[in-house]
Amino acid sequence: MTKSRVRSVAALWQILSRKSFVTSSTLKAFSTSLINPSNSILMAPSLVSLDCPDLWTSSFVQSDRSSIQKYSSKRVAQIIDGKAIADEIRSGIALEVRRMKESIGQVPELAVILVGQRRDSQTYVRNKKIGSEEVGIKFVMTTLPDNCTEYEVCNALQNYNENPSVHGIILQLPLPQHLDEGKILSLLSLEKDVDGFHPVNIGNLALLGREPLFIPCTPKGCIELLLRSGIEIMGKKVVVIGRSNVVGLPMSLLLQRHHATVTIIHAYTRNPDKISREADILITAAGVPNLVRGSWLKPGAIVVDVGTNPVEDPECERGYRLMGDVCFEEASKIASAITPVPGGVGPMTVAMLLYNTLESAKRAYKFT
Amino acid sequence: MTKSRVRSVAALWQILSRKSFVTSSTLKAFSTSLINPSNSILMAPSLVSLDCPDLWTSSFVQSDRSSIQKYSSKRVAQIIDGKAIADEIRSGIALEVRRMKESIGQVPELAVILVGQRRDSQTYVRNKKIGSEEVGIKFVMTTLPDNCTEYEVCNALQNYNENPSVHGIILQLPLPQHLDEGKILSLLSLEKDVDGFHPVNIGNLALLGREPLFIPCTPKGCIELLLRSGIEIMGKKVVVIGRSNVVGLPMSLLLQRHHATVTIIHAYTRNPDKISREADILITAAGVPNLVRGSWLKPGAIVVDVGTNPVEDPECERGYRLMGDVCFEEASKIASAITPVPGGVGPMTVAMLLYNTLESAKRAYKFT
Repeated sequence: MTKSRVRSVAALWQILSRKSFVTSSTLKAFSTSLINPSNSILMAPSLVSLDCPDLWTSSFVQSDRSSIQKYSSKRVAQIIDGKAIADEIRSGIALEVRRMKESIGQVPELAVILVGQRRDSQTYVRNKKIGSEEVGIKFVMTTLPDNCTEYEVCNALQNYNENPSVHGIILQLPLPQHLDEGKILSLLSLEKDVDGFHPVNIGNLALLGREPLFIPCTPKGCIELLLRSGIEIMGKKVVVIGRSNVVGLPMSLLLQRHHATVTIIHAYTRNPDKISREADILITAAGVPNLVRGSWLKPGAIVVDVGTNPVEDPECERGYRLMGDVCFEEASKIASAITPVPGGVGPMTVAMLLYNTLESAKRAYKFT
Repeated sequence: MTKSRVRSVAALWQILSRKSFVTSSTLKAFSTSLINPSNSILMAPSLVSLDCPDLWTSSFVQSDRSSIQKYSSKRVAQIIDGKAIADEIRSGIALEVRRMKESIGQVPELAVILVGQRRDSQTYVRNKKIGSEEVGIKFVMTTLPDNCTEYEVCNALQNYNENPSVHGIILQLPLPQHLDEGKILSLLSLEKDVDGFHPVNIGNLALLGREPLFIPCTPKGCIELLLRSGIEIMGKKVVVIGRSNVVGLPMSLLLQRHHATVTIIHAYTRNPDKISREADILITAAGVPNLVRGSWLKPGAIVVDVGTNPVEDPECERGYRLMGDVCFEEASKIASAITPVPGGVGPMTVAMLLYNTLESAKRAYKFT
């Protein structure tokens, strides 16, 4: 939005917000009408289109009793089916990729650099490969040994940076200890940073009025899960557990752009359970199995569990199973909606990566 | 810190945190011992040196009764004298500038681009000029008329970017409506972005393990006020009112790097007074006079008032006086410490700008 347009909107907001007949939902609809979503694959609009002027009127101080969340009277949480939602999104991506191929003879291409032999990294990369190929995105990979030099990684990165056929580049983390992740990541071409980890992307995610080229995949996926489940974010008290650069930090920034009131819990937080109990929406990405007990939840809260913690289980084929941060058994009796692990946030992360890669290709070819 | 050093520190943290005799203050002292402050002008250490691994142990869940904040028994808040603290910092800066001049024959230089005739902008720029000259920093300025073109502003900016004698550049905001602030700001040389507004700086402020070249001046000043007043930030519940790109947003990011538990209040927050009452430290940058009443405060809370709201007052020489966001009369009876307006945060902002300019010059000349 141009500056003059923002000011016009702000002026109109100011007039509207003084009218008692104008409810918050009306204001929201007004805002939505100004949004021009660039595609129909995702519900989430552009961030700049969400930006609204902070109009501090005397009326906002009074408790908004009329909009106190109506908690579900059932004691069993609705399951937010991340797999089903991710499948729907992937179908949309596949259609769009096919349209691009038929129109301009090009497809998006995703490149991954994998260093070392970590089993979990290999699994994640394999999922990205399968996901890409399923939707028609070309997938290429460079593997390097665990003891490779920084020069070799940077060289592989530079080749992908300069290759016009490559639209997205992933540096699969973590890197072996002798390599400087931050330094190498900052060499990644901004236009291909589909993970959205570059400081410029994070800065543009944080700043009002700015639009990041890419939003980090897991937070982006969480927002999409909430929106597609009909869960309102604006004005809600959202607590994020964890502040990692990959999830917690961008998650909190993204929620704030959606006008949630955000609190971030980390390992130095006192009484995290008490703070967590205030949340209308709780998003946990701590990486600690069973961290969040039933007592951490407000009745009727929405719970988004980003945790993917491998826990030993001899009964499972691989000898372990995945658990979230949340004690599902307790939480599902208290929350009104919850994402399962697996099958919740996980499938959405890859879907958002594929979406980001598609967006990158569309920008590169100016394809609309 | 190198990656291997971070891992060593993390391992040592893990061992220490399991020992019951190791209190949070011990862990903090341990952390501080690893810090190498690059100068003695400011108390605040580098951000990367603050970074500590988030070790989620089962013990952290229990309420930490032993460290419940001891509230002042007095009902009158201690005044945090920003002017006195800023004067002390400016003296330190002046000494360092003189040392630089005597050692290498160079002084820092600050360049300001001022567009238009706004009285408040003219006042702010005048303060920056006076402040610079008082400490021996060279000050240069380009003034442009209100109806100048974007090309003219960018041209002035580019000249300063390329001038090796200029170490800090300020684009005095706000710009006239027809100019695209974000676009012009992004052209400002990163090494001279002493306001710290560039998305890369904001991203590096947000990301763990990263260090911004410059921290935005007002948030930086607030941290310095707190530290110099002996107020602990780590583990405290801090509420920030306002999320502007200039103050609220970077303030919340900076507090999180200091390991506070941060909640951000904005105009879409429900029950902001209730949330505000939970704060150990309340920092308000809403730009609304008398927003924060006594009822918004927990007894003994620390209050940092960033508001600088001109309020009509015929009894004042200029026809107006400056008021903060906080109703000082009520708040000073409840808070344990409070910054006055004027004389609190305001003087610190310019002091931090001068500090950032000095730092920029030191980097440019590799002067230690």
